[in-house]
Amino acid sequence: MPEERRTTLAAIAAEAGVSLPTVSKVVNGRRDVAPATRARVEQLLHQHNYSRGGMRRHRRSGLVDLVFNGLDSPWAVEILRGVEEWGSANSTGVAVSAVRHGDARPTSWTGTLASHDTDGVILVTSELTNSQLGQLRSAGIPLVVIDPVNPPPPEIPSVGATNWAGGLSATEHLIGLGHRRIGTIAGPGDYLCSRARVDGYRSALERDDVSFDPALVRHGDFHHEGGFARGGELLDLADRPTAIFAGSDQQAFGVYEAARQRGLRVPEDLSVVGFDDLPVTRWASPPLTTVRQPLSEMGRTAAQMLGDLVDGGTLRASRIELSTELIVRESTAPPAG
Amino acid sequence: MPEERRTTLAAIAAEAGVSLPTVSKVVNGRRDVAPATRARVEQLLHQHNYSRGGMRRHRRSGLVDLVFNGLDSPWAVEILRGVEEWGSANSTGVAVSAVRHGDARPTSWTGTLASHDTDGVILVTSELTNSQLGQLRSAGIPLVVIDPVNPPPPEIPSVGATNWAGGLSATEHLIGLGHRRIGTIAGPGDYLCSRARVDGYRSALERDDVSFDPALVRHGDFHHEGGFARGGELLDLADRPTAIFAGSDQQAFGVYEAARQRGLRVPEDLSVVGFDDLPVTRWASPPLTTVRQPLSEMGRTAAQMLGDLVDGGTLRASRIELSTELIVRESTAPPAG
Repeated sequence: MPEERRTTLAAIAAEAGVSLPTVSKVVNGRRDVAPATRARVEQLLHQHNYSRGGMRRHRRSGLVDLVFNGLDSPWAVEILRGVEEWGSANSTGVAVSAVRHGDARPTSWTGTLASHDTDGVILVTSELTNSQLGQLRSAGIPLVVIDPVNPPPPEIPSVGATNWAGGLSATEHLIGLGHRRIGTIAGPGDYLCSRARVDGYRSALERDDVSFDPALVRHGDFHHEGGFARGGELLDLADRPTAIFAGSDQQAFGVYEAARQRGLRVPEDLSVVGFDDLPVTRWASPPLTTVRQPLSEMGRTAAQMLGDLVDGGTLRASRIELSTELIVRESTAPPAG
Repeated sequence: MPEERRTTLAAIAAEAGVSLPTVSKVVNGRRDVAPATRARVEQLLHQHNYSRGGMRRHRRSGLVDLVFNGLDSPWAVEILRGVEEWGSANSTGVAVSAVRHGDARPTSWTGTLASHDTDGVILVTSELTNSQLGQLRSAGIPLVVIDPVNPPPPEIPSVGATNWAGGLSATEHLIGLGHRRIGTIAGPGDYLCSRARVDGYRSALERDDVSFDPALVRHGDFHHEGGFARGGELLDLADRPTAIFAGSDQQAFGVYEAARQRGLRVPEDLSVVGFDDLPVTRWASPPLTTVRQPLSEMGRTAAQMLGDLVDGGTLRASRIELSTELIVRESTAPPAG
């Protein structure tokens, strides 16, 4: 055990009023420690930045874990590609898992890590509980999150895109075309990235003195179904929107279908803006105007941050947001007459 | 070292005329063995089914590797989902890597495995050289391949879809609609799955006494670009086809775009059939008629076979083909008058 590590653990043992072996048990994830004792030791390990400093587990596994909320979206492979390219360049394997299968409720994703050794974890759009954080800290496993559902503690590094700016630019584009009734379908209401996009949407409306109507804001899952269901609700309003800013490209295609089933043409009767810029946006009819977020680059950046932590380095910033960019294609046009 | 393993290695040492430590070096992938000796020992290890029997490395890593040719297609995530579901149910991590990045030439995928321990490998649409096979055998790592580029040795288990039957059913569907000039764009000409589909296409033509025209068969990559380029060539023929059977859904969308740029409507002027049935086929305009191959199920089946090998079991069959199914949507219609 390196001297620094021993000293810190001894100090923590003293502070917690337990023995050094008890602290070691907590660090090594052993179960034979009373819950209250474990909680106290984990809290102290956390205060001493146990998971961030030079106190790494001595054996590297040459592997990091990439944990998705679900593997049912083509954007997962975009993030994966970035992480894998980093792994390939840095001789590090990338283990991929999902915490949700189809419609099944999320299980504890930390459980998926138990099958193998890992040097660190990248968690994508998943929830992060204090208990899960404690488990990783106890095991000394560094963590970087991409688009976390809930705000992570400030010491957990995270990567995202400029979601607020993306929501702003999409909405300003629609206002610039002359739209005033602009609906939006965000992702689930508790996702940070959804909130940021809706706030950007709202700010754009306020800047241009377009009144904000809460009835025009809907929350649905990021998939085709969410866009189809929530888009249909918006289009069935007595005073329906002339444009919809969707929370993902898949949602946007759900809106296409909801429009088609109501005899509405895109963009003549309804303008649609997506979010992500998946390759599929170029194959759609009409090709989709969307807010590009650099998913592969986000994956690569998260992996680079994790690699720095695994090497015992420090990060320049705890939160990095890569810029979004509005890509105008053929799904947006001025409103009809 | 288990008794069975020691006995076999000793027998191989005697047969090769080398010492037991030399055989162990080959098994453990050490470099200090003369190439000719290594080749002889690997050959004997192979003959003795070294990688198939009960002679497993004693330490399980709890991890299998899933190696893709490239991570630039949405169908990768479909296969991944099946493998990951098996991994989750069997407490096994899934490490994902790619042997090709963008347009870069393939590197040796066995090199990507060097960073971590693995219990077995699933290789997807990649090439398999004798040298690579030898490396895996030497390390005692079981292998299952999905849609191999070249025919694997008979003892290597593989999973595919009924590509020939898929090519047959797609072409019969088009013939049934009245088409006689039917083009096809296969994947790369050296892929087994491409050959099987083209053979199914040809058999359907022959069964219905439609003459086979080699000019109507093109090979391109499975991506949008391949369909756009090869589809454009077919549509620029003096006697252009009235229908095109593409090798993938992405190719089919490339054909859509090639048709659109030439003022041709789908399906009025050109019928298009894809292959795969990715979720995106339902979002296309018009929704794509395609040959469904059960990608997630193929991933799960390959993982199950690999799990059986890792456990030292034997397989019921070395080759499993899951059935394809023609899904008729709106991109196919009778040819224009």
